[in-house]
Amino acid sequence: MSEKNRQILLASRPKGEVTPADFRLVEAEIPAIGPGEVLVRNHFLSLDPYMRGRMDDAKSYAASQPLDEVMIGGTAGEVVESRNPEFAVGDRVMGMLGWQLYGKDDGRMIRKVDTSRVPLSAYLGAVGMPGVTAWYGLNRIIAPKAGETVVVSAASGAVGSVVGQLARRKGCRVVGVAGGAQKCAIVVDEYGFDACVDYKAGQLYADLRAATPDGIDGYFDNVGGATLDAVLRRMNAFGRIAVCGLISSYDGQPMLLQNFRSVLVNRLRVEGFIVSEHMEVWPEALRELGTLVATGELKYRETIAQGLENAPEAFIGLLKGRNVGKQLVRLIAP
Amino acid sequence: MSEKNRQILLASRPKGEVTPADFRLVEAEIPAIGPGEVLVRNHFLSLDPYMRGRMDDAKSYAASQPLDEVMIGGTAGEVVESRNPEFAVGDRVMGMLGWQLYGKDDGRMIRKVDTSRVPLSAYLGAVGMPGVTAWYGLNRIIAPKAGETVVVSAASGAVGSVVGQLARRKGCRVVGVAGGAQKCAIVVDEYGFDACVDYKAGQLYADLRAATPDGIDGYFDNVGGATLDAVLRRMNAFGRIAVCGLISSYDGQPMLLQNFRSVLVNRLRVEGFIVSEHMEVWPEALRELGTLVATGELKYRETIAQGLENAPEAFIGLLKGRNVGKQLVRLIAP
Repeated sequence: MSEKNRQILLASRPKGEVTPADFRLVEAEIPAIGPGEVLVRNHFLSLDPYMRGRMDDAKSYAASQPLDEVMIGGTAGEVVESRNPEFAVGDRVMGMLGWQLYGKDDGRMIRKVDTSRVPLSAYLGAVGMPGVTAWYGLNRIIAPKAGETVVVSAASGAVGSVVGQLARRKGCRVVGVAGGAQKCAIVVDEYGFDACVDYKAGQLYADLRAATPDGIDGYFDNVGGATLDAVLRRMNAFGRIAVCGLISSYDGQPMLLQNFRSVLVNRLRVEGFIVSEHMEVWPEALRELGTLVATGELKYRETIAQGLENAPEAFIGLLKGRNVGKQLVRLIAP
Repeated sequence: MSEKNRQILLASRPKGEVTPADFRLVEAEIPAIGPGEVLVRNHFLSLDPYMRGRMDDAKSYAASQPLDEVMIGGTAGEVVESRNPEFAVGDRVMGMLGWQLYGKDDGRMIRKVDTSRVPLSAYLGAVGMPGVTAWYGLNRIIAPKAGETVVVSAASGAVGSVVGQLARRKGCRVVGVAGGAQKCAIVVDEYGFDACVDYKAGQLYADLRAATPDGIDGYFDNVGGATLDAVLRRMNAFGRIAVCGLISSYDGQPMLLQNFRSVLVNRLRVEGFIVSEHMEVWPEALRELGTLVATGELKYRETIAQGLENAPEAFIGLLKGRNVGKQLVRLIAP
């Protein structure tokens, strides 16, 4: 190939908020593949909040993203060269090839996906890591019963929107928390939540109380901070809280909780989890999610930035909640 | 009987700290017993931190202690009259007869205990509710493996001292947190903990770090607050926290936590519990604890106030950590 590869590297570790200067766009050779390897042209990058944690060098559950290397991340694309009998040119594949146009793999970190009934991009969202994250936290930690009330924060996002729809299918009252009237309208009208609390409206606890007349039995937490604190005040006895993300403090702010006492008073179970540590559920979860998306029973939205060079701004927007649904970057012509 | 009963009633709900004026000592008739009933002369009152919660009328896991009624609480005593074939005069019994010299029961809320190898008072401590509390939180929530590090706060207390000794028997490194050099010496020298951190020494986190070189896998929390916050910073991946008490905020102070993020980063499980909701474990736990006390393998200490009239001061002292080990009130001549 005569074309060049293009890549975005992590140039510096953010001090507090992420800025465009923390990234650098470079050109590189398209990698040559050896025996057993596959070359993939990425069509979509997945942007996800967990990436913020990787940009720090603090102790965390995952290795830091090294400086001056291609930003990590999930990708969906097309095989353009193959020396691996399992993959043919034209196959659509998921992988973790990072923020670049082309990546290669030995076939162990990519998998073929069927795009006949589910669009390729959905494998980065509702039928991918975010969907399985929702599935695991809801089914394995919250494990709600019909009639219970389940609350989810970042409810219009890639994870939260799936949590709510799955909980609704189990017969729960489902209440979202999201930022702004527009997002709340989507959560209720499009995803079918029973109610949505706009945390930007300035009366989070009062609105949450009104939306959860019978208290809260399960909380899927994507944000931490003031929302978690308000939810703790509304929890019922033997409630379960799945801690999936704490996006409100990813920039290193201390997170002050005032209502931890509820954990004792209400005998709560609070559990943090990372979906990549529960690979055993992926096949079952992806099968269920794939069917629901293919039949139109599970709705999702995407916010798509166009072009590799716009990935940093899109990622910063994601951290600020500017996206609706799954934040993607498209690397091919729309 | 010509003697009078004496009782301590809750006179008012404390605003913040409990004061002696919140109680009132009264005389009353010794209750007459009907068919199937038993009259018990209490020998010991059990004073426990949970009682502080009952004195408020806020929503809590248990009903409020009514005003102008006998303070609730566990008791150990002797049957002095019986119209119940299951109980004979002279039997030693445990019950929940409250802060008074005499109480009656229909036999359903008292149980006979064997004082041939275990002293009567121990059934209010290591072989009673505090012991079972320790047993449940350690075995059913923390479930430690040999070689893991377990930390317990209020380590010299009736619950904490049992937690540490049981964890030590499982092959764990056990670190206590207690207030003052004297309590810490008891925790290490008498209860056999590997180390004890004096939270009053002014460098809680540094001392805790030094005492837990391999991090913390299990934490039995009796106090909440700054100790919980420091422990959260030291937790290892997949650690478990049993939330048993939050004595540091029983007076209503907000409890500010800064390190909740550890729940996600380390995929912790945090679980609040109340031992009276797990009656199914009591027989097994009491059997094990009784054997260990009878054989001298499980040590305990008691702080004993003499006379019903001194119960309020003793209770206030308990909340301030003035006791060592189980706080009791003796109602008979020593």
